Amino acid sequence: MRCDILVVGAGILGLSSAYHLKAENPGRRVVVIERLRGPGEGNTAKSEAVFRDAFTSETNRALAASSIEFFKHLEQRGYNLRLAFTGYLWLLSQQQFDRVREAIRDMERDGVRLTLYQREELERMIPGLVTRFEGDEEAELMGLPPIDIGLLAHNCGCLRAEALVKTYEALFLRLGGEIHYRVEARRLLLGAVEELGLPGEPHVWQEPRVKGVETDGGIIEAETNVVATGAWTGKLLEPIGFDPCMRPKKRQIFVLSDERLSSLFDVEGFNQHRVLPFTILPKSNLYLKAEPYERSVWVGCSDEIGRAFELEDDPQPELEYYKDDIYPILMKYLPLFKDLRPVNMWAGHYAVNSFDGHPIVESIPGLIYVGAASGSGIMKCDALGRIVAALHAGRAEAELFDGSRFRVADLSIQRRRTERERFVI
Amino acid sequence: MRCDILVVGAGILGLSSAYHLKAENPGRRVVVIERLRGPGEGNTAKSEAVFRDAFTSETNRALAASSIEFFKHLEQRGYNLRLAFTGYLWLLSQQQFDRVREAIRDMERDGVRLTLYQREELERMIPGLVTRFEGDEEAELMGLPPIDIGLLAHNCGCLRAEALVKTYEALFLRLGGEIHYRVEARRLLLGAVEELGLPGEPHVWQEPRVKGVETDGGIIEAETNVVATGAWTGKLLEPIGFDPCMRPKKRQIFVLSDERLSSLFDVEGFNQHRVLPFTILPKSNLYLKAEPYERSVWVGCSDEIGRAFELEDDPQPELEYYKDDIYPILMKYLPLFKDLRPVNMWAGHYAVNSFDGHPIVESIPGLIYVGAASGSGIMKCDALGRIVAALHAGRAEAELFDGSRFRVADLSIQRRRTERERFVI
Repeated sequence: MRCDILVVGAGILGLSSAYHLKAENPGRRVVVIERLRGPGEGNTAKSEAVFRDAFTSETNRALAASSIEFFKHLEQRGYNLRLAFTGYLWLLSQQQFDRVREAIRDMERDGVRLTLYQREELERMIPGLVTRFEGDEEAELMGLPPIDIGLLAHNCGCLRAEALVKTYEALFLRLGGEIHYRVEARRLLLGAVEELGLPGEPHVWQEPRVKGVETDGGIIEAETNVVATGAWTGKLLEPIGFDPCMRPKKRQIFVLSDERLSSLFDVEGFNQHRVLPFTILPKSNLYLKAEPYERSVWVGCSDEIGRAFELEDDPQPELEYYKDDIYPILMKYLPLFKDLRPVNMWAGHYAVNSFDGHPIVESIPGLIYVGAASGSGIMKCDALGRIVAALHAGRAEAELFDGSRFRVADLSIQRRRTERERFVI
Repeated sequence: MRCDILVVGAGILGLSSAYHLKAENPGRRVVVIERLRGPGEGNTAKSEAVFRDAFTSETNRALAASSIEFFKHLEQRGYNLRLAFTGYLWLLSQQQFDRVREAIRDMERDGVRLTLYQREELERMIPGLVTRFEGDEEAELMGLPPIDIGLLAHNCGCLRAEALVKTYEALFLRLGGEIHYRVEARRLLLGAVEELGLPGEPHVWQEPRVKGVETDGGIIEAETNVVATGAWTGKLLEPIGFDPCMRPKKRQIFVLSDERLSSLFDVEGFNQHRVLPFTILPKSNLYLKAEPYERSVWVGCSDEIGRAFELEDDPQPELEYYKDDIYPILMKYLPLFKDLRPVNMWAGHYAVNSFDGHPIVESIPGLIYVGAASGSGIMKCDALGRIVAALHAGRAEAELFDGSRFRVADLSIQRRRTERERFVI
């Protein structure tokens, strides 16, 4: 098979890229291949599926804010993404607040909509919230910080990942794009820009070019091969000597659902959905997402040191991890959760760029790589798709959905220029 | 076993670190373990063992220039490193020269000693050098640039890697350091800063700390564990969730020795050794090192795209690579090499940081990681050892051998601040 543009991976970054590439190149044959049976069945479906524009880094804000605008636009056009602006709520100790005070001021200056809450307000608004642990020996052993301040970011919330990825699929198909599911890319085919027909090409004195992909269903040749395979990217890029600057790390989400939690779906003052915002506790970045449509609570946690960087074939959630790591924190701050056990849970992988946490969009002849989104691929997907399309077209700048312009090379490896995120709790 | 500081790896970065750590902490027990039988038997011994101070990046220059000063000092103190200031000679086309013209000006402004040569001079000085390929179809097919200009950097040259690493070993042992060869680190032992004796520690709510190393000879506990295991670092760091931001890549060196090459050891005008400087041809970064003591020529090449990132158990040099990739370039520019075959060859690994090419010195409680030197570990080894010792002592700045000060966090991952190298051919 031959095509003009081949996109490997029908996750959120692959389909957003495919859509924008096809939109810019209506006369070209754009093909997506995906080893799974449908769109977003890899780590897209395993995501928390939340979004925020509350960042200090211009890079982060530009990518996320413009993508959020596009999500709103899609809903206005009738695509139901289950977009819910429930907000992000960081619960902070005074000490944590002091560390990010300047970052908060800068975000406000840059137009991020934020509201601060004092402890007493939080106690009133969030059912059963514990903010002080004096005399609680366990809490002291665990080093649980008190809650002194709440920071709510408004232009944030959650959506249904499956709905978003299916929307991009539909948009792409409507333009005449092709998708082949259950086709697995085995390796990239590397040749020379000017082939001489010698064995062993490309030799070191030849300019290399990615010519296509060997799949389990045969060879597909393409002018441009877009690798958007998330946590699996190393398997394709490392053999040709392209470092994806990304490592896979397990993520786990635990779902709780119980009559007792219904008060979290009747919370006044934070958002029009009357649900607890996406809430980050002041310990271990433990987060809760009150899913407003399912009325369940998703819980997860960032385990940095202690959790291996590795790619598992079939990652499984670990109930022990919920019981020994997450639950002890959760039930201290929110005793509502006492004795509750997950009704559902799953595990996937993050594709982590440990260097600066920003996504990567890089190219060599015949190849574009988009990935390493480090847990924020969904919230940045539309901007990244547009940047891929701009890179393919050879433009130095991409125009994002909100009209802002983004320097394509800023996300490259070789000419990278990203701002370190300072709003880190 | 217990010690204060455990250094894993007796390569050049491990032994330089061990020496500076012991020098700063004479009363502490500093132990080095190494899986091989002697110092530098891993990739240190496989290196080109060249050094230069010709960089635009202040980071590169500070690390290399101060290390070179220390090498000189060691020789003055009677250690024979076989240090030879043969110079680095880049042979450039006019087009290549134009691209780095500004970088050259900046290096000169910053005190790097450089000399430019015109084509005619180069032709006179280098036996049999071919600088023009008009009418040579093969050369045109291969895209070989002409040579128009030579750039010689003076404070550069080569040394004997084995001698350098043995010198650090001797200095370390003289201070009372301990080395155990044939001891292999299998994994890092991760615990909590405040251990509670619970199974599964550290839990996500505990502060993690590296407590020691499990080796094939038992457990070694240490306050500080320094990981200086070069290309093998991923095996130790990834399981604990620490991303070394480094990938291993094969390097190969081919040694040529023949009566016909003797003219390369009788070259006037570049250096007092009367040998061809370490020479970089204008294609594929192919380099030649005329080893002034052995009177052999080492040849190698940078194969970026096309050579997998992978760690091989026992990497072997590929004669085909010499014949099909290196030789065709070499014999065009230097027909002296026509029909010569390597008398020796070997392969090892680079530890490549693809992001910015600079080394990494990073810590978490109980652990210091030094590595990712990307092919310049030897020339930067002394500065890196001093930076490790400063980080261990909690100083924000390291004093390098030449008296310059280096901000320790500049080489960290989290607070990194490095200058992109602009002198790239």
